[in-house]
Amino acid sequence: MHRNGEGTNRSLGISYRRDYEREALIVYEVLKVEFDVVFFVESSQPFDNLPPADAVIVVGGDGTVLRTLKKVQLPVIGVKAGRLGFFSSYHVNELEKLVLDLHAWRFKEDKRWLLKVEHDGLALYALNDAVLQKDVDQKIVDFHVRMQDGTFDYHADGLVISTPTGSSAYALALGGPIMLPNVEAFEITPMAPQFLATRSLVIPSSENVIVDASAPVNLVVDGDLIAKVSSISVSKSDRKIVLLRPIEYDFSSSIKEKIGYGRRVLNGY
Amino acid sequence: MHRNGEGTNRSLGISYRRDYEREALIVYEVLKVEFDVVFFVESSQPFDNLPPADAVIVVGGDGTVLRTLKKVQLPVIGVKAGRLGFFSSYHVNELEKLVLDLHAWRFKEDKRWLLKVEHDGLALYALNDAVLQKDVDQKIVDFHVRMQDGTFDYHADGLVISTPTGSSAYALALGGPIMLPNVEAFEITPMAPQFLATRSLVIPSSENVIVDASAPVNLVVDGDLIAKVSSISVSKSDRKIVLLRPIEYDFSSSIKEKIGYGRRVLNGY
Repeated sequence: MHRNGEGTNRSLGISYRRDYEREALIVYEVLKVEFDVVFFVESSQPFDNLPPADAVIVVGGDGTVLRTLKKVQLPVIGVKAGRLGFFSSYHVNELEKLVLDLHAWRFKEDKRWLLKVEHDGLALYALNDAVLQKDVDQKIVDFHVRMQDGTFDYHADGLVISTPTGSSAYALALGGPIMLPNVEAFEITPMAPQFLATRSLVIPSSENVIVDASAPVNLVVDGDLIAKVSSISVSKSDRKIVLLRPIEYDFSSSIKEKIGYGRRVLNGY
Repeated sequence: MHRNGEGTNRSLGISYRRDYEREALIVYEVLKVEFDVVFFVESSQPFDNLPPADAVIVVGGDGTVLRTLKKVQLPVIGVKAGRLGFFSSYHVNELEKLVLDLHAWRFKEDKRWLLKVEHDGLALYALNDAVLQKDVDQKIVDFHVRMQDGTFDYHADGLVISTPTGSSAYALALGGPIMLPNVEAFEITPMAPQFLATRSLVIPSSENVIVDASAPVNLVVDGDLIAKVSSISVSKSDRKIVLLRPIEYDFSSSIKEKIGYGRRVLNGY
C-alpha cells in the first residue's frame, strides 16, 4: 500500500540485533505502510540471496551496523536501540522523522573508507580497526612495522591499526588522537608498549604497511577474532561504506555528544 | 679556486647561530675551496639583498634552521653543531661527506609544507606550529574552534596547532601523536584542558580552521612571540620548504634516533 509522492518506490531492507527484535518489528510495521520492505533479517544470520534495496535500516548499535556492513554493500541508516552509537543517527522513538526523510530521500551521505587487511593470502576489510594482540598468557611480542617511510619496532602486547572512523573506538581507549572522518590517514597505536613508545603513529593513507610479529598473535578485525597470524599487510582499500545521516548531522556534534570531547563548558562552573 | 667536475659551479650561502661562529667558519673554509660561497650571515641578523644561491648551509640547531627559513626561500642543508635536531642531517665532523654530496648534488629532497596563520589582517607561516597560550597570571580561556566539519570547544591554557613536521615538537610534549611528514593533515592539541579533552584532533589539510578565544592570548609561531590575539585563522599554505638530506635519510631513523620512538629493543633485555 503506497502513498503517492516522492520516494514511495524506495525499497528498504531491515537488519536487527537479536535482542532488539521487538523494536525492529515496530520499525518494520511503520515502514511497510509506505515503502517496499524487501528483507527483514537478524544481523548474525547469513544474508544469502537478499533482494536489492536502496538502503538497509539497521536496528541495533554500532556492532550491528558493522556486522550488517560486512554482509551487504548498501547504504546504511542506523536506528538506535539501546546504547549510543557512532553509526546510528535516528532513535527508535523518532520514526516519524525517519519516514519523512525517507520520503524526501533527504540525507547527508557520510562516506567512510575501509582498510584492507591481508594475511596468509586472505583479504579482510576493516571499517574501524585491525588489532594484533597476544594471548593473556603469552610473552610480550616484538612487532616490526615496515612501510615506504621506514620501519618502526614495538615491544608490546599488541598493535591497533585503525581508520579515522576507528580513531574514536579502541585506539581512543589506548590514548590515540581523534581523527576527523575525512582525514587521508590511518594510525597505529601500540598496546602497553615498553620504553614509553605509547604515542600513535599517523600514516598517510597511500602507505602500505607490513607488520611482522615475533610470535603468532590474534588478529581481530572490527571486533571479530579471525586467526592467529605472524604477519599482516594493511593498506587503504577501494571499498567505502555510506551511512545515510539526517541532513543536520555533523561529526563534531556526534563526538561531543558521545564522548564529551570538545563540548562547550559553561563559564564560571 | 675550483676543482673540475660536476657541481663545482654551485653557489652556497651559510647561515649560523651566533655561538657556533667558530664551527661556521670551519664550514666556510672547507666549502669555499670548492664552491662559490656567496653569503655568510649570522641567523638573527637581517638577510637583506642576499645574492641568489643553490642552497643555504645552516650551522646550528632546529631553531637556527627555522629562523633561516623565515628569511630565505632556498633549500636548506642543516649542519649539526650542538644538540641533535630534526632539521639537521650532517654533523660538523662530517664535512667530507657533505662536500662529496654537494659535488654530486646527491640529496634526498625532504619537502615540508607550512601552515598559514592569519590574525588581524596579517599572515604568518608556521613550519612547526602556531601556539595560542594564556599568560601565567591569566584565567583559563575558552577556545572556540570552527571549521567545515563542525565546532569544538576547549576550556584550556592554550592550543597548539601543528603541522606533521611540528608533531614531533611541542605537540608531542603535550601528548600528541607522531605524524609522518607527508600526512595531509594537521592537528590541534590542547594545553591543560578541563574535562579530560586532552586528545589531539587530527584535521584534513584541506580545512580552514578559525579559533576564537574568550580573552586575548599570546600567539607564538614557530617559537616567536608575535602578538596578543583574540582570533586566528589557520589553513595549509602554498609554501613549502625543502631540506636537502643525505640520500640514505629516512624519517623513521630520525625519530628513532632523536626520541627513541619505535626503536628496536633487544630481546631478553
